[in-house]
Amino acid sequence: MQVPEAQALATSYVHVGGEEQIRLQDSDGRVLASDMVAPHPFPAFARSGMDGYAVRSSDLAACDQGEMVWLKVVDQIPCGYVSSIPIKQGLASRIMTGAQVPEGADAVVMLEATELRVKEGVTYVGLKRSIDTGKNITPRGFELQEGDLLLRKGTCIGPGEISVLATFGIHQVKVYRQPVVGIFSTGTELLDITEPLEPGKIRNSNTYMLASQIREAGGVPVIMEAIPDDIELARQKVEEALGEYDIVVTTGGVSVGDYDIMGELVTSGGLDMLFNKVTMRPGSVTTAAVKDGKLLFALSGNPGACYVGFLLFVRPSIRKMLGMEQLYLTEWTAELGADYSKVNNFTRFVRGRLAVINGRLVATPAALDESSVMITIKDSDCLIVVPPELRGAVKGQSVQVLVLPGAFG
Amino acid sequence: MQVPEAQALATSYVHVGGEEQIRLQDSDGRVLASDMVAPHPFPAFARSGMDGYAVRSSDLAACDQGEMVWLKVVDQIPCGYVSSIPIKQGLASRIMTGAQVPEGADAVVMLEATELRVKEGVTYVGLKRSIDTGKNITPRGFELQEGDLLLRKGTCIGPGEISVLATFGIHQVKVYRQPVVGIFSTGTELLDITEPLEPGKIRNSNTYMLASQIREAGGVPVIMEAIPDDIELARQKVEEALGEYDIVVTTGGVSVGDYDIMGELVTSGGLDMLFNKVTMRPGSVTTAAVKDGKLLFALSGNPGACYVGFLLFVRPSIRKMLGMEQLYLTEWTAELGADYSKVNNFTRFVRGRLAVINGRLVATPAALDESSVMITIKDSDCLIVVPPELRGAVKGQSVQVLVLPGAFG
Repeated sequence: MQVPEAQALATSYVHVGGEEQIRLQDSDGRVLASDMVAPHPFPAFARSGMDGYAVRSSDLAACDQGEMVWLKVVDQIPCGYVSSIPIKQGLASRIMTGAQVPEGADAVVMLEATELRVKEGVTYVGLKRSIDTGKNITPRGFELQEGDLLLRKGTCIGPGEISVLATFGIHQVKVYRQPVVGIFSTGTELLDITEPLEPGKIRNSNTYMLASQIREAGGVPVIMEAIPDDIELARQKVEEALGEYDIVVTTGGVSVGDYDIMGELVTSGGLDMLFNKVTMRPGSVTTAAVKDGKLLFALSGNPGACYVGFLLFVRPSIRKMLGMEQLYLTEWTAELGADYSKVNNFTRFVRGRLAVINGRLVATPAALDESSVMITIKDSDCLIVVPPELRGAVKGQSVQVLVLPGAFG
Repeated sequence: MQVPEAQALATSYVHVGGEEQIRLQDSDGRVLASDMVAPHPFPAFARSGMDGYAVRSSDLAACDQGEMVWLKVVDQIPCGYVSSIPIKQGLASRIMTGAQVPEGADAVVMLEATELRVKEGVTYVGLKRSIDTGKNITPRGFELQEGDLLLRKGTCIGPGEISVLATFGIHQVKVYRQPVVGIFSTGTELLDITEPLEPGKIRNSNTYMLASQIREAGGVPVIMEAIPDDIELARQKVEEALGEYDIVVTTGGVSVGDYDIMGELVTSGGLDMLFNKVTMRPGSVTTAAVKDGKLLFALSGNPGACYVGFLLFVRPSIRKMLGMEQLYLTEWTAELGADYSKVNNFTRFVRGRLAVINGRLVATPAALDESSVMITIKDSDCLIVVPPELRGAVKGQSVQVLVLPGAFG
C-alpha cells in the first residue's frame, strides 16, 4: 500500500473527539468546536486614531482660503469615557487615541497640527488646514460587523485567535477533547530508562520519544509497561488499552523475525487489519488495525522508522480527533542540496535540513538516515520525499519536503 | 533607535535563569543547562541489522567457487539475549534484528538467502553466496562513542533529544528555569473579558494575547489586574511586580497623549530607560527599562503593535533566560507577493503569509495591517520587513521575512 492511501484509510476511521468547555487562557493549541460569530461590531464605536481634537470637517473648510479657524474646546475625552457634549458648529473636543469620537464630530486633527489660546477662561483650538471627513477616525465596525464569522469551527487557537476571542468577551470556549493515546513498547530486550544497561539489551527510548511526539500533536500520552514477547499477554494488554484509550500505539515487534508479536496479534485477534506493509522507507512494516472504531498503530522498533511512522500515520489521526483541519505535515517543493543515492522500490522519507538561500528552499539530507539510526532525528527539520522512480537523486533537482513540527519556531 | 540595536540592548541585560532538575518526560521545550556526554558507546554492542544467521565470513569464501556451504546452527539469539556460544569455524547462530552478534561472527546472512536441513537431530543452514566482513552488522559505537558529546548545553528538548537521552538512561535532566513574566495592561477604558461591553470601553484582550505569546516563548505568564491611569499606583504596582517576577510587560499607556503613564513612570521612577522610541512600525513607542537587573517592557496598547513588540523584544529576552541559543525569529529572504505602498521613515513589520511556489518563498502582506487592527494577527505566519528606504515595495522584489512561531507546525 502507498503512503497517501494508507494515511487516508487510517484517518477515515477517526472522528473528532467529544466537546468540552474550557477557559480561554487554557486554550492554546486547542481547536474550536463551533463557529464563533461577532456579538457586536468591532470597533464597537467610532474610535479616534490620534491624540488631537475631534472636529466637524465642514468647520475647517475656511482654512482652504488661508484662514485660521478657531474652535471652542468643550470637552476632554480620554479612553473609556463617553462625552456627553455633541460637537456642534464651532466646537471641538480634545480626544485621546482609542477614545470614542463624540457625536457630531467627523474627523480628528492631530495634536501636533494645532495651537491653543485661552480667552476669558475659555479654551480655543486653532487649526490651519482643512481635513477630509472621516480622517483619523476608525469607523464602528471597521474590522467586523455584528454577526460576522470571527473564527471557524476547526480553527486552532493561538495568540491571534485569543486576541479576537478576548476582544469579544468570549472567555470560555468550546473545543474538542484531546485524544488520550496509550503507548506500548514490545520486546524483552527493553530496559526501562531508569535501569542500568545490561549486555545485549537496549533502553526503551521510543516510548518517551512517542510521548513527546504525541504531546506536540496535541494528544495526551499514557506510557504503559513494555509488553514482553508473549502473544497472549500482548493481545490482552492491547485490547484493554483499546478499551480505555482513544488510540493505541506500539513500537517494536513488527519485524519478520520469529519473535514478531504485533503482526500475529492483529491477524489472530479480533482486530480488522487496515494495512501491515507500506511502500516506504523507513518503516515499511507499519501496521494499522481497528477494533470497535479505535485505532491501533504498530510502529517499527527502529527509532528512525518509529519517528517517521508516527508523523505519517498517528499524528494525522490525533489531529483529526482534535478537530484540526490540516491533518498532514506541511509539504513544500525544495531543491535538493546534495546527491542522494539510496533509492529502491520504496518511497523514502529522508531526514534533512532546510535552508533558504536567496529565496529558494534547499533541503539537504542527513549524513546518517538509516532506519535504525537515532542520533540524526534531533538534527532534522524536514523529511525529504524521495520517490522510488528517482534513480539517484542529484543535487539541485526538485523534491517534495515535509516540514517537521516546530521546525522554525 | 533601530530595531536590532534595541533588541541587542535589551537582551544584554538578561541572563539565563537558575537551573532545575526535571523528569525527562516533562522536558519538552525546555533547554539543557549542561552538556550531555555519552556514558557508553551506542550501539553498546555489535547489533544485527537483519533476521538471519550470524556467521564467519571466511566460512563462506567457498561459495565463490559455486559451492553451497552448510554450517551447524548452534544457538537462537533473540533481542535482549546474549549467546554464550562463540561462532567457531563451521558454526552459525540464528539471530534476530537488533540482537547482539555472538562472539566470533563477523557478518549476518539474511534469512531469505538461506535454507535449512536437519540431519541426525542437528540443524544446518545452507548458504550459496559469500559475504563481506561486517555485512548486516551495526558495529558497537557506530552512532556514538563513549564520551562523545550527545547534546550541547543550550539545546532545546524535543522528540529527537528525548530519544537520545532515553537511549542513555538519562531520565532526569538539568534545565534552565522558565522565566515568570508579569503582565499588566493600563487604562481605565479596559473591561475584563468577563465583563459586559460598555459604551466607549474595550475589553482587555492584549493581556490574554500576551499570555499566550509568553507560553509559546517558553515563559510562565502571570496576568495581573489592569492598572488604572494613575501614575503613583502604576509605579507602585510595576515596582512590586519587578520584585516578584523575572520580566514585566505592560500594554497600553505609551502613546503621547495626556494620559500616557508608562513613559512618565519610567522617566520619573527608579528605572533606567534603555529605549523609548524605536524606528519601527507598528510600535514605534515601545519602551524598555531596567531596575535591579529586571526588565520592564512597555508595549503599545494597539493589538498589532503589542503583538509585534512582544515578538521583537520580549520573546528574545524570555528565550535568553530559558537558555535558548536562537533568540530571534527565523529570518528568510522571500519574494514579495504583492505591491506594498505604505512606506515612511520607519522599518515596517508587516503581517503576511508565506507560500512556497516552485521552491521559491513568496510572502504576501495582509490586507489590513494597521497597528490598531486585531483581526489579521491570527491569519499571519510571517512578518515582512519593509525597510524605510524602500519607496513603494513592488511585487516580485526580495524582502526579508521573520517566520512567526508555530507557523508551519
